[in-house]
Amino acid sequence: MTEMKLKAPFEARLSALRAELARRGLDGFVVPRADEHQGEMVAARAERLAWLTGFTGSAGQAVVLRAEAAIFVDGRYTLQVGLQVDTRLFAPLHLIDSPPGDWIAEHLAGGRLGYDPWLHTEDQVAQLKRNCAKAGSEAVACEDNPLDAVWGDQPDQPLAPVIAHPLEYSGKTSSDKRHEVGAKITEAGAAAAVLTLPDSLAWLLNVRGGDVPRTPLPLSFGILHADGRFAWFIDARKLDGGADGALGAHLGNEVNVRPPWDLGPALDALSGRKVLVDAATAAAWVFDRLRAAGADILRGDDPCLLPKACKNDVEIAGAKAAHVRDGASLTRFLAWLSVAAPSGGVTELAAARRLRSFREENPEFRDLSFDTISGSGPNGAIVHYRADAASDRTLGAGELFLLDSGAQYPDGTTDVTRTVAIDRPSDEMRDRFTRVLKGHIALATARFPVGSTGSQLDVLARLPLWQAGLDYDHGTGHGVGSFLGVHEGPQRISKLPNRVALQPGMIVSNEPGYYKTGAYGIRIENLVTVVESPARAGDERPMLEFETLTLAPIDRSLIEVALMNEAELDWLDAYHARVRAQLAPHLDGAALAWLDEATAAISR
Amino acid sequence: MTEMKLKAPFEARLSALRAELARRGLDGFVVPRADEHQGEMVAARAERLAWLTGFTGSAGQAVVLRAEAAIFVDGRYTLQVGLQVDTRLFAPLHLIDSPPGDWIAEHLAGGRLGYDPWLHTEDQVAQLKRNCAKAGSEAVACEDNPLDAVWGDQPDQPLAPVIAHPLEYSGKTSSDKRHEVGAKITEAGAAAAVLTLPDSLAWLLNVRGGDVPRTPLPLSFGILHADGRFAWFIDARKLDGGADGALGAHLGNEVNVRPPWDLGPALDALSGRKVLVDAATAAAWVFDRLRAAGADILRGDDPCLLPKACKNDVEIAGAKAAHVRDGASLTRFLAWLSVAAPSGGVTELAAARRLRSFREENPEFRDLSFDTISGSGPNGAIVHYRADAASDRTLGAGELFLLDSGAQYPDGTTDVTRTVAIDRPSDEMRDRFTRVLKGHIALATARFPVGSTGSQLDVLARLPLWQAGLDYDHGTGHGVGSFLGVHEGPQRISKLPNRVALQPGMIVSNEPGYYKTGAYGIRIENLVTVVESPARAGDERPMLEFETLTLAPIDRSLIEVALMNEAELDWLDAYHARVRAQLAPHLDGAALAWLDEATAAISR
Repeated sequence: MTEMKLKAPFEARLSALRAELARRGLDGFVVPRADEHQGEMVAARAERLAWLTGFTGSAGQAVVLRAEAAIFVDGRYTLQVGLQVDTRLFAPLHLIDSPPGDWIAEHLAGGRLGYDPWLHTEDQVAQLKRNCAKAGSEAVACEDNPLDAVWGDQPDQPLAPVIAHPLEYSGKTSSDKRHEVGAKITEAGAAAAVLTLPDSLAWLLNVRGGDVPRTPLPLSFGILHADGRFAWFIDARKLDGGADGALGAHLGNEVNVRPPWDLGPALDALSGRKVLVDAATAAAWVFDRLRAAGADILRGDDPCLLPKACKNDVEIAGAKAAHVRDGASLTRFLAWLSVAAPSGGVTELAAARRLRSFREENPEFRDLSFDTISGSGPNGAIVHYRADAASDRTLGAGELFLLDSGAQYPDGTTDVTRTVAIDRPSDEMRDRFTRVLKGHIALATARFPVGSTGSQLDVLARLPLWQAGLDYDHGTGHGVGSFLGVHEGPQRISKLPNRVALQPGMIVSNEPGYYKTGAYGIRIENLVTVVESPARAGDERPMLEFETLTLAPIDRSLIEVALMNEAELDWLDAYHARVRAQLAPHLDGAALAWLDEATAAISR
Repeated sequence: MTEMKLKAPFEARLSALRAELARRGLDGFVVPRADEHQGEMVAARAERLAWLTGFTGSAGQAVVLRAEAAIFVDGRYTLQVGLQVDTRLFAPLHLIDSPPGDWIAEHLAGGRLGYDPWLHTEDQVAQLKRNCAKAGSEAVACEDNPLDAVWGDQPDQPLAPVIAHPLEYSGKTSSDKRHEVGAKITEAGAAAAVLTLPDSLAWLLNVRGGDVPRTPLPLSFGILHADGRFAWFIDARKLDGGADGALGAHLGNEVNVRPPWDLGPALDALSGRKVLVDAATAAAWVFDRLRAAGADILRGDDPCLLPKACKNDVEIAGAKAAHVRDGASLTRFLAWLSVAAPSGGVTELAAARRLRSFREENPEFRDLSFDTISGSGPNGAIVHYRADAASDRTLGAGELFLLDSGAQYPDGTTDVTRTVAIDRPSDEMRDRFTRVLKGHIALATARFPVGSTGSQLDVLARLPLWQAGLDYDHGTGHGVGSFLGVHEGPQRISKLPNRVALQPGMIVSNEPGYYKTGAYGIRIENLVTVVESPARAGDERPMLEFETLTLAPIDRSLIEVALMNEAELDWLDAYHARVRAQLAPHLDGAALAWLDEATAAISR
């Protein structure tokens, strides 16, 4: 009965939305889990899918028709959707196996389906229109979102203060960045680029903010002209003292702060000009407006993506400092855990809180970089697990504990996973852990020619698992920002095709894993940065390699030494020696003693 | 002066073509190296680019304007084009760095550029039209090819006899194939598929022919209806006794033989139907005709590609028999070479002729599967080298000899590369050869989950070279047909993205290499087939692996044993033991004695 009560508000919300749609002459409406920037992290105001359905996953979409409604989620969320959503109201469907297009074509014959052009890319709208056409229906852009009209207590747009990201962290002035990116816009034959990705804007302007959780982003839009001038569409209340305040000096006189509602007229003013827009991420609204204004649209990648991904020397130095700090906090936690867990009193949530409190001791700590994944035993096998009061379990003896966490510091963003054995692990656990570690080392030590992509390298991390008929169903590495998103592109280490070559300064994760459903999960994740590989006698090609940034012991009790070759053991010992050398100055007492033991060379 | 004389005909041909274009009111014409099937191998009649320019490479394109002309070739052919083409007549340009589109946009202002819609895909025509539009020009489809009008002694369409490819080699009746592919056409929502690839047609109908060099293909077109009925557009003179003769019984009553000129009317008859066409390979002419007829075109892969690539058990058994036969011939050759070469009297051309004569001793020999690459010393470093009288050189002591060759047998197509040391190789040669071999073995022994692509595996063959700062600039493996093309898709082992999963029965080459310009080339190529990997205890995923088909000794004098690990040496010894066991029954005398020595276990 409690459950029924909990679900009750969703019935009323759905009814209210349907009434609003009827009032507007619409037969349906699409509610994606998306904001105006197609960001991974969205503000509370943009959590429309969660408000309407109860589903809180990071991807999904509902379609509401007059008499029926459905929610579409991917394989990660098929369990979760059943727990969170009243499936009498919303039929739960698989985003890939039963795509919304097919469902719309079947259930909406000859009607008008509304969508918010701010919440879909142009390609998504084109797909929607094709699907509606198949059903003899019409997809209609709504000028304002009908769901917002019935969401009485919808939060306002966030107004977190924008702060300067100074040169000591950014390593390059906004002016230099704007002129360099401007030159790329000229090269592409365009006069200006419309920027809609908040992390591109934060990088370009050397600012940070707090409009979304876990990523220090201000939400805003911008137009970068080829000559480096920049029009920034942002609520001036977020700027310290307004556009003329302290931040104004940081921005300089080529950045013109304008209110958000000026974006439309500014797009209109691009009439007849060639304008670069990233079709993968810009809202359909932007395309509609530019097209109506008679601009010549050039579809291409956001020109900030690649320079943002290639960190400069100052950013890399910052990342290294952040990783020493973060590694010391994680080591304090692991030392504490080694005593606390075997006595049986530590739960997943308590462990995550404790780790956070160690990190918070650093004055530079700003936030976590994502919600900690703290999974013991079978919960560790759920790749996107987030512990809550209902799922929370005590770390038990003979179990594995998987802990994936990270933090935001002004000089860098961290993301690290360690898997530790609580008491004695089984032989199978040690076999699996060692294979994951061998894959991790193969990637960490890879040497590859300039021009190689992460897609080419992905297999190195999987091979030791493949040899035993095992694998994992996620990518091997994602890009990481500099005091920005913990997930950023355009590079990626994945079996999926990716044409972006790895380049010096890029930061990516190295995180192979293994998951045994109902039993345990293993993942070993370090961040690495791409560096030029020192030339060796006989080299004929310029080569690259990775330098590992993350510093934290890897649980030696989980290593089956007989499965490791000499080179792998050498790497591990050298890594541990470096961890010890870099972290010891920041530790003392029991934590230091634990570090010494945890990083001792493997006996062979 | 001889050169000038040789080049003289091209000036006259170019003038004649220009006169013809003027007569037709055209300002230019595009001459691709292509036939109506976009095949790699083309009939003599389709060698228009060679006739016009002298260039005989397998890819390229000329554009002839009123006063200027250019020839565009890729990186493989930049040297060759300078040797073969009078560059006062045709400016030699790089296909990628200076694409024809840019050149046309610059040199053709406001004119009419002709093209033959039979020799370009629809996408190529669209690109051509965009480029012409940029220059204010127009691309005009020619009803008949103006070059053909001035090529007085142009060879006729080939009329090689079509033969049945019996069930003992094909393993599946044409009827079964047509009904299975027909079901896929239905699944795709189409009523019929237009087939334009000669190897798809040969596979589907279980026929072979001889219209192009080195591949037993009849040139023809076809329309496969979803119910398995097939309209075959082919010159009946190629059929033994005409359509009603012996071949008629083999084809059965669902195959309707019609003259080539009936293709157009047959496409017209598809008006209002949904028709599957492969946009990557079908001529623009087909699209134009279907569109004019009001057919509903579905762009998709040729539905024969994938079932043709996955050989059935009979085809695999045939491939194995062909490889024993071919391996015995190659071994006889290698034994002969081991005596003849060190005495200094063997040239590249003589070696290729000798190898061919050993192969011809097999009654099942039908043809080479491609022109042999026989490269000694520095010629071995030219990846697409073909020896001719001018380049032919004697295999010298202390040099490497790279020999890439293959044959067509009714039960299978072979393709094998061996690199052998003439006398004592240098330490560097042995280091490089061993790295190439390690890469070859890594791929040969890979175990990978169902669903993996060749793109994922490519790096395994490169890693030992990368570790020394080396690499090679070609793919690692291509598909191979069954008494069909030595190059076939859709699978590929390459660093380029390819989404086609490797599947049991696919045959691919495993051919890493290393090339030192001006010095030597190394390549070790075996064909392998994809097989299910026998389950091992603990396997959680269905796994695949490769089984090596090619049987021939790998030169042990080129192996640096210290660079090999135990598992690699085990593989090599086991491979050699298998080569010995399978080939010995087919050899005697000196060749057998040589085989015994060449396949002895490595001393460790």
